[in-house]
Amino acid sequence: MKAVAINGYGTIGKRVADAVAAQDDMKVVGVSKTKPDFEAEMAIAKGYDLYMAIPEREKLFEDAGVQVSGTVDEMFDKADIVVDCTPEGMGAKNKENIYEKRDLKAIFEGGEKHDAIGLSFNSFCNYEDVIGAEYARVVSCNTTGLSRTLKPIADLCGIKKVRAVMVRRGADPAQVKKGPINAIIPNPPTVPSHHGPDLQTVMYDVDITTIAILVPTTLMHQHNLMVELESTPDLDDIIETLEKTSRVILVSADKGLGSTAEVMEYAKDLGRSRNDLFEIAVWKESLNIVEDELYYMQAIHQEADVVPENVDAIRAMLEIETDAQKSIEKTNKSMDIL
Amino acid sequence: MKAVAINGYGTIGKRVADAVAAQDDMKVVGVSKTKPDFEAEMAIAKGYDLYMAIPEREKLFEDAGVQVSGTVDEMFDKADIVVDCTPEGMGAKNKENIYEKRDLKAIFEGGEKHDAIGLSFNSFCNYEDVIGAEYARVVSCNTTGLSRTLKPIADLCGIKKVRAVMVRRGADPAQVKKGPINAIIPNPPTVPSHHGPDLQTVMYDVDITTIAILVPTTLMHQHNLMVELESTPDLDDIIETLEKTSRVILVSADKGLGSTAEVMEYAKDLGRSRNDLFEIAVWKESLNIVEDELYYMQAIHQEADVVPENVDAIRAMLEIETDAQKSIEKTNKSMDIL
Repeated sequence: MKAVAINGYGTIGKRVADAVAAQDDMKVVGVSKTKPDFEAEMAIAKGYDLYMAIPEREKLFEDAGVQVSGTVDEMFDKADIVVDCTPEGMGAKNKENIYEKRDLKAIFEGGEKHDAIGLSFNSFCNYEDVIGAEYARVVSCNTTGLSRTLKPIADLCGIKKVRAVMVRRGADPAQVKKGPINAIIPNPPTVPSHHGPDLQTVMYDVDITTIAILVPTTLMHQHNLMVELESTPDLDDIIETLEKTSRVILVSADKGLGSTAEVMEYAKDLGRSRNDLFEIAVWKESLNIVEDELYYMQAIHQEADVVPENVDAIRAMLEIETDAQKSIEKTNKSMDIL
Repeated sequence: MKAVAINGYGTIGKRVADAVAAQDDMKVVGVSKTKPDFEAEMAIAKGYDLYMAIPEREKLFEDAGVQVSGTVDEMFDKADIVVDCTPEGMGAKNKENIYEKRDLKAIFEGGEKHDAIGLSFNSFCNYEDVIGAEYARVVSCNTTGLSRTLKPIADLCGIKKVRAVMVRRGADPAQVKKGPINAIIPNPPTVPSHHGPDLQTVMYDVDITTIAILVPTTLMHQHNLMVELESTPDLDDIIETLEKTSRVILVSADKGLGSTAEVMEYAKDLGRSRNDLFEIAVWKESLNIVEDELYYMQAIHQEADVVPENVDAIRAMLEIETDAQKSIEKTNKSMDIL
């Protein structure tokens, strides 16, 4: 049983903790928080050992009646690997100041820059390249969504060029202080956005240009893809390929799943913890081939889709499993992924 | 002075009425309403003669204290041309049941189908083809936005293929009963959307594929364009062309115009009636050429951008002016268009 520490128990950290706890070849040795808030209390209620990210705050936690097991340093002592789920940009600092000095393997999230970590990860694209690695970054929710559907299409018929417009949720559901309330924001206002180069950190050769905008919704991102193909299969071949692709589901507007809100309702009805949709939802009606170009639309649950990839990254880096497909299947089974 | 009747004094009708009233070669002989609501009262306060769209409602208007000048039939008697701004689909019925029987020229809006009217109009694309026509349809706000920026680019360097993702406002500001509140809706969920074929009703030869989604905002639509060029000019040539293109403005995120909400604030500061932005706002930072492909983002004020085209359509159909450029300049001057 490999020991996994979760540094930062927020939106992604709490989900990765639960996913790790569901595996039979790894366990959670602790999670860390900077504050004794409701998430800290719930971590303890779930049975996780809680560690203080800021050691000087012992009294703060004590006053709040939240029992800690020690400081993050003590948590790191017990770990074979740490999953760093701290806010954007902190991971790179932690790598330099903590993990490298301790010789501790670490997984980072998509908020960190590829260059700061040196190696990025997606289960379906480059599992093999991360086996035994010291540090790797699980690409962002959007890039994970691009990887999941573009890789099987590339394998089926080759991709000449991808154009994608990423319609991003303005804030996560619990981020009450962020907007936009009633606006569409080109973000960045420059073209292309960083999402294309980010995909190239795991799908090395893909030719892709992306454009990104923010809109006033919290539930999911939405992608519009235009994919020039090298060879042109029947549309049915594409549909069959995506139907049997792991962590991708096809949804139909004509069955009542015509929006991101309805897709989230579907995740609730699946009985998923926190309504998490780990899969990428591709609208079946949107799939179309016109003049050797494939078009489709997909939805990304930004809080959840990268979680199974984090589990696979742990297996690759600790060499628990060197076969990508076996790790993916094991993770899927443990998390009831479709 | 040609006599123009406005059938339907709602979102578009009231704006077209004001724009016609601002011209020195045409006048408003009347506007029609189905109900004695605040818009009816304001039409009279502005000095327009108000006619009942439903003759049987005389008592309803009388009880509300709203003085009418007669029925729509009496309004049509006085008109050289009618601008039909009734709800989507009604225009085609009015054409068959009223205008054709009366031999009355009529202009329709983008909610009507091209095939039902037989001829579509944009001032910059096909003014000449509409000179003297009996019936024409001013293309929708989105198609007008595509026409305005793609035509000058086609003229400058030729277009091989356009791909565009249309991010549409969920409802107009006053449509309080419509959503989405918190969702992204592929609309239609099929690809391509109708916007590409609609552009081809005025830019006959353009190769274009469009994808459309609805988002929870009311202020403006937003377009993401990917344009394969026949020849590749300097980016500066494109910028210069768009800067001198009528009814197109370049806006900069780094000057505080980084969203549709801020662009609308700019229209307010221009002192425009109803905050109308008749121009298409192109984000300067978004303009970029990569491998013979031009990328840009633009914003469309759905309530306003088609209004000057309606005025130009009146001039073309009544043969008041057979030179497109002269009509465009006259309309622009009268409406303080940039």
